[in-house]
Amino acid sequence: MTRPRVRDLGLLLGDLPPGPENAITDVAGVRVGHTTLCRGEGPLRPGEGPVRTGVTVILPHDGNLFRHKVPAAVHTINGFGKATGFEQVRELGTLEAPIALTNTLNVGLVADALVQHAIRQSPEIGIQTGSVNVVVGECNDGYLNDLQGRHVRAEQVWAALEAATAGPVAEGAVGAGTGTRGFSWKAGIGTASRVLPADLGAFTVGALVQTNMGRPGDLILAGFPVGRHLRPPQPGCSSLSYAQGRTACGFSFAETAGAEKGSIMIVLATDAPLTAHQLRRLGVRVAAGLARTGSTLSHGSGDFVIAFSTAYRLPHKPPALTLDRPMVVAGRVLNRLFQAVVESVEEAVVNSLFCAETVVGRDGHTAYALPTAEAVALVQQARRGERP
Amino acid sequence: MTRPRVRDLGLLLGDLPPGPENAITDVAGVRVGHTTLCRGEGPLRPGEGPVRTGVTVILPHDGNLFRHKVPAAVHTINGFGKATGFEQVRELGTLEAPIALTNTLNVGLVADALVQHAIRQSPEIGIQTGSVNVVVGECNDGYLNDLQGRHVRAEQVWAALEAATAGPVAEGAVGAGTGTRGFSWKAGIGTASRVLPADLGAFTVGALVQTNMGRPGDLILAGFPVGRHLRPPQPGCSSLSYAQGRTACGFSFAETAGAEKGSIMIVLATDAPLTAHQLRRLGVRVAAGLARTGSTLSHGSGDFVIAFSTAYRLPHKPPALTLDRPMVVAGRVLNRLFQAVVESVEEAVVNSLFCAETVVGRDGHTAYALPTAEAVALVQQARRGERP
Amino acid sequence: MTRPRVRDLGLLLGDLPPGPENAITDVAGVRVGHTTLCRGEGPLRPGEGPVRTGVTVILPHDGNLFRHKVPAAVHTINGFGKATGFEQVRELGTLEAPIALTNTLNVGLVADALVQHAIRQSPEIGIQTGSVNVVVGECNDGYLNDLQGRHVRAEQVWAALEAATAGPVAEGAVGAGTGTRGFSWKAGIGTASRVLPADLGAFTVGALVQTNMGRPGDLILAGFPVGRHLRPPQPGCSSLSYAQGRTACGFSFAETAGAEKGSIMIVLATDAPLTAHQLRRLGVRVAAGLARTGSTLSHGSGDFVIAFSTAYRLPHKPPALTLDRPMVVAGRVLNRLFQAVVESVEEAVVNSLFCAETVVGRDGHTAYALPTAEAVALVQQARRGERP
Amino acid sequence: MTRPRVRDLGLLLGDLPPGPENAITDVAGVRVGHTTLCRGEGPLRPGEGPVRTGVTVILPHDGNLFRHKVPAAVHTINGFGKATGFEQVRELGTLEAPIALTNTLNVGLVADALVQHAIRQSPEIGIQTGSVNVVVGECNDGYLNDLQGRHVRAEQVWAALEAATAGPVAEGAVGAGTGTRGFSWKAGIGTASRVLPADLGAFTVGALVQTNMGRPGDLILAGFPVGRHLRPPQPGCSSLSYAQGRTACGFSFAETAGAEKGSIMIVLATDAPLTAHQLRRLGVRVAAGLARTGSTLSHGSGDFVIAFSTAYRLPHKPPALTLDRPMVVAGRVLNRLFQAVVESVEEAVVNSLFCAETVVGRDGHTAYALPTAEAVALVQQARRGERP
Repeated sequence: MTRPRVRDLGLLLGDLPPGPENAITDVAGVRVGHTTLCRGEGPLRPGEGPVRTGVTVILPHDGNLFRHKVPAAVHTINGFGKATGFEQVRELGTLEAPIALTNTLNVGLVADALVQHAIRQSPEIGIQTGSVNVVVGECNDGYLNDLQGRHVRAEQVWAALEAATAGPVAEGAVGAGTGTRGFSWKAGIGTASRVLPADLGAFTVGALVQTNMGRPGDLILAGFPVGRHLRPPQPGCSSLSYAQGRTACGFSFAETAGAEKGSIMIVLATDAPLTAHQLRRLGVRVAAGLARTGSTLSHGSGDFVIAFSTAYRLPHKPPALTLDRPMVVAGRVLNRLFQAVVESVEEAVVNSLFCAETVVGRDGHTAYALPTAEAVALVQQARRGERP
Repeated sequence: MTRPRVRDLGLLLGDLPPGPENAITDVAGVRVGHTTLCRGEGPLRPGEGPVRTGVTVILPHDGNLFRHKVPAAVHTINGFGKATGFEQVRELGTLEAPIALTNTLNVGLVADALVQHAIRQSPEIGIQTGSVNVVVGECNDGYLNDLQGRHVRAEQVWAALEAATAGPVAEGAVGAGTGTRGFSWKAGIGTASRVLPADLGAFTVGALVQTNMGRPGDLILAGFPVGRHLRPPQPGCSSLSYAQGRTACGFSFAETAGAEKGSIMIVLATDAPLTAHQLRRLGVRVAAGLARTGSTLSHGSGDFVIAFSTAYRLPHKPPALTLDRPMVVAGRVLNRLFQAVVESVEEAVVNSLFCAETVVGRDGHTAYALPTAEAVALVQQARRGERP
Repeated sequence: MTRPRVRDLGLLLGDLPPGPENAITDVAGVRVGHTTLCRGEGPLRPGEGPVRTGVTVILPHDGNLFRHKVPAAVHTINGFGKATGFEQVRELGTLEAPIALTNTLNVGLVADALVQHAIRQSPEIGIQTGSVNVVVGECNDGYLNDLQGRHVRAEQVWAALEAATAGPVAEGAVGAGTGTRGFSWKAGIGTASRVLPADLGAFTVGALVQTNMGRPGDLILAGFPVGRHLRPPQPGCSSLSYAQGRTACGFSFAETAGAEKGSIMIVLATDAPLTAHQLRRLGVRVAAGLARTGSTLSHGSGDFVIAFSTAYRLPHKPPALTLDRPMVVAGRVLNRLFQAVVESVEEAVVNSLFCAETVVGRDGHTAYALPTAEAVALVQQARRGERP
Repeated sequence: MTRPRVRDLGLLLGDLPPGPENAITDVAGVRVGHTTLCRGEGPLRPGEGPVRTGVTVILPHDGNLFRHKVPAAVHTINGFGKATGFEQVRELGTLEAPIALTNTLNVGLVADALVQHAIRQSPEIGIQTGSVNVVVGECNDGYLNDLQGRHVRAEQVWAALEAATAGPVAEGAVGAGTGTRGFSWKAGIGTASRVLPADLGAFTVGALVQTNMGRPGDLILAGFPVGRHLRPPQPGCSSLSYAQGRTACGFSFAETAGAEKGSIMIVLATDAPLTAHQLRRLGVRVAAGLARTGSTLSHGSGDFVIAFSTAYRLPHKPPALTLDRPMVVAGRVLNRLFQAVVESVEEAVVNSLFCAETVVGRDGHTAYALPTAEAVALVQQARRGERP
């Protein structure tokens, strides 16, 4: 029984139309897989549980990525995080392994699992050819999850790779989003897409996010400051309105500040033929999409973007000294691609909140599902008022 | 007769309180000066007129900047622009001359004027000591102004430096904002400030912007999509609502795309003791402030940030091998400084629109003043609807 | 029985004097530890052996690094590599865990071992406080070693941390240098240091390198092109002089190109009070030190620098909003620090070659020890000729 | 009567062969022009003279650069300098106007002259289309020249553009090199080129430098530390050998440090089809070329690289949404291109010294021509010694 996405509830964000699934998988060839780990409850036993975490993988195409790389770029909005594999993407502009997202202390083990997977697919790695670069992003799900246990192991990563499919993408408290929060609500994985007009190439942009950032009061929905009216229940008190003040029910500043320690990982895919240099420029626009949801890009939030194009492949062993590649040269296409990034990132974050069920984790810590009907009603009331 | 600022009309943006002037000059010691050039009318005579341009200067303190530099950083959000002086600020983390803003083809002459000014103040430059780095930002005011004439000459730059004062800052169609537009309305210079709570150091952040960016329909005011309802009149037709469609009255896509060729220059000042490294992190948050006004950081928009701190000075001839300097170390102070950046940039952009009168320029091109009463009414209607 | 270092053989490189150990440990408080893995021989059995690899750790001080961080910077000369932990150092300018160097496919497991070690030292990680950033560098030792086995496990990392000491540093085929090569000779770990004059603060700079780069013919020793005269023996033929031509004994271009797939990791330590911004500037000068040994910074060489200062510490929980920190402000100190970097990196690379014994690895692949007496004699002959 | 270049004197640097002119103009289509300003003598009258300066321009092709841009990149090795136009090249990866080099206080006026030139060639600039980005580099020639006078005016820039030709390039004390020094000798403009083997595409790389950096004792020639033996005469004493000590004849540390305030501008051209991203990687290798001449990339030296490819053009008004472009994909081609950069930069710096005549400037300051026969003899003696 899945919760409805924002568009299912009648709220349209942005101006460009989404693709058929309104998901990163609308970019042909892209697949997404999750492994969700949810076991144990009660007090935290460091290293053992409770476990509320997982891994999400994104694959640009269904071939051998090491042998047939895709153009890619990374962009670090705020580098307070443990993402790995960024240096080589920045230098070479290519992606040669699936992207994985997980929890913050699990990056090493997940990276190692991806290395093992690459070796299995391309046994020449480390023997006839050098090495393989894997990209892993992360958020800190320690409010709900036993972080120290690093519970995502190689088997879970491989299972997610096995499970990866095109088509609809599970959102909310799944995979790497199992234990994350957004604006102090339960959040998780979200996705969305946008399609350019036919006379601008009909290119698709898709975004997938692992949301774990934002202060409770800052949430913006469809341009409306929903966070001023709706706050997650605090221990011992119910949701409170902004008018009641920030410190009611023990809503202390420290707690708010703690909420800013979250992060967000953003994966962008497109079928537009972009160079690595242009893909980085797409990544820069993610900040505007995040800002539309209320983010102020806080100090403690590791905000990282990985962007790739599926428009062409770069062979590990090139058949010639030079190759011809297509490249977007029209500024108006770039502008619409940038707009597509802003809109699909905004909607992906919102979906990551709308689709996430309430989760109770370590020490009884509870991340509440956003009351989406109430949130949408607030927006619609405002929109009625808005009409001249 | 000046137009009211957004706060004068009863709209409060953001959560933090502004300083006494709600201006960059709330950072003690900072001064701003303008020279406004407005002469001629009728058809464009390239190189001659009509002239609708100017220069705005920002001075971090009233001493000799070359001999007593301030810590500074630059951040390029989108580098499609001609800003100069950025390399040395990036390398050394210091500012040693006033910042000037002007039109895009005038950067060379304005930079030369600043060099002459620095030599006059510090005659040792180029004789006993090396050189001086000047920072100039720019926007393209060619819709109203004869760009090819590069009408800002040394005398105008020096006059702006002479005229620079603390206290209230003239906004709208003045100085470097004389000929610029925002969201296809008349825009110009805008400013705002924010003050942190006393227990977070009571630090002030001030922003000053030269607004020249944004598509007509994208304008957001106080979180509400005002641009969907209010559009600037087009030649031969009056303001039209979004419902009437984007192409009514010859509102062609090309024109919209043209509007994305604008830019925005953002100057940040603070009295918080930040390193150059931390000042750059402030600059990164500007993108979120711009996004709150509807920007999608378009391809053709040169979006550049210059940030400085007045908390300490770095002598050109240091008295010792090492010096002690203060530095913010608390993450919660950084978070509130980031929020202050986002809020003051948002409000500075809005002020740059609210304060600008209608200007008729070359070839009868008209940039219309935003109908602020109408815009505020739209927001207030929506806010009434918003209340549960 | 260790091989002599270059200075022991009478060759002095550069102009500044070294510290007492001519090692990175001359920077007070810095410790280095190795675990060397060398087992099995004969044909490569992927995933099993032969094993010729290891791990080297560098600790800035002997306290709790997570709670008392040091200022740090990273600099990527050529990003074709798998180094991890760079994003957070770049953003925050601090190092909060020991640095580890290892082989290229082992980065994930070594990073995980460092995470476990940090948790053991600071059990609050992931419970009361967020996460921990670990920095791991790597080279590709696959010519000698079974890379796919990722033979460095947590126990080996912890053993290196346990073994870390001040004082003399073992060089050559030890730790992370067990299986690496330089200019097709056996190379490995090398270190050196320089001390500034008393009137420039008497600061120390230390470098430690994991050498794995360079084409056979390109080696330069003390300014003399030793690589033109001395080449490593090829399978079935002995060392040959440049005059005999590049392709004698099957010296094919492909093989030469293969040699350019190596990398080099460089760790810099100093007791000079530098900001993160200034430490990055130190890192930029490493390229000049590498060039002095004959490097042309080839495409396939991941050349990464990590630099830190021991002059002050940054507490995880700062006692106040702001702190005073010392900072080098004199340009002439920076110039001598830059020179110290160039000289100590050059000598560290040379030591990594001079100290390495011949190693036979997988498939009988042999990396020959540089005939140091012959090399030094070549330089001395030239120097005699050089005298007017 | 020109002085011989290093290769004319029998010294070959590097391994790759040069092109027919051993100059940047070996890249087909590239043209270079100089205007040399040399008037007045005696004491400095600030703002008046003596004048020892000029401007050098480099044009990638002989068409309209604004309408037919070339792929380009910038790389800042050390940003202590006033170079302008870098932001847009970094963002868009294109060059749309000739490159100019001049003295440090003249950048503004030279940039304005290039803007005027672009408008004359493309009158649509600022009217039907936005703006134009000009790139200017600089060195500080204030030891010989009246810097404050900013004596390079628009006419001189236009004259250099008029005079620009393919074929041999005047070197030494000409154009922007009229007043610069290197390693305290007279230096100036230098150039060199390298050609790749036919099986690697036979691509050409050309470098042109404006040399103004280096400490007297640090000069390296063909790998030999010539600076230890040959020093420029000091006021009142003749050239002295290293053995006589650094402080003989008033050779004070301060003076040496002063020599580190110089800079170097490096322009790279190639006909290899490289992306902007790859061109930046070429720029990174320049540091290794500089290091081969003895540079330690000192604090006060603004070291800037501008690199472009002539292999294809990017139209200002693209005829389609996307275009196909060629791109080097073979790592071994990149490696040889990098080597070509290192070698041609080294030789260009050496040529800038070899070709420069003694120049007497302001206050009788004298920059002495390097005694090239003596320098070459030192190298040859050493090479004889070097032979086993």
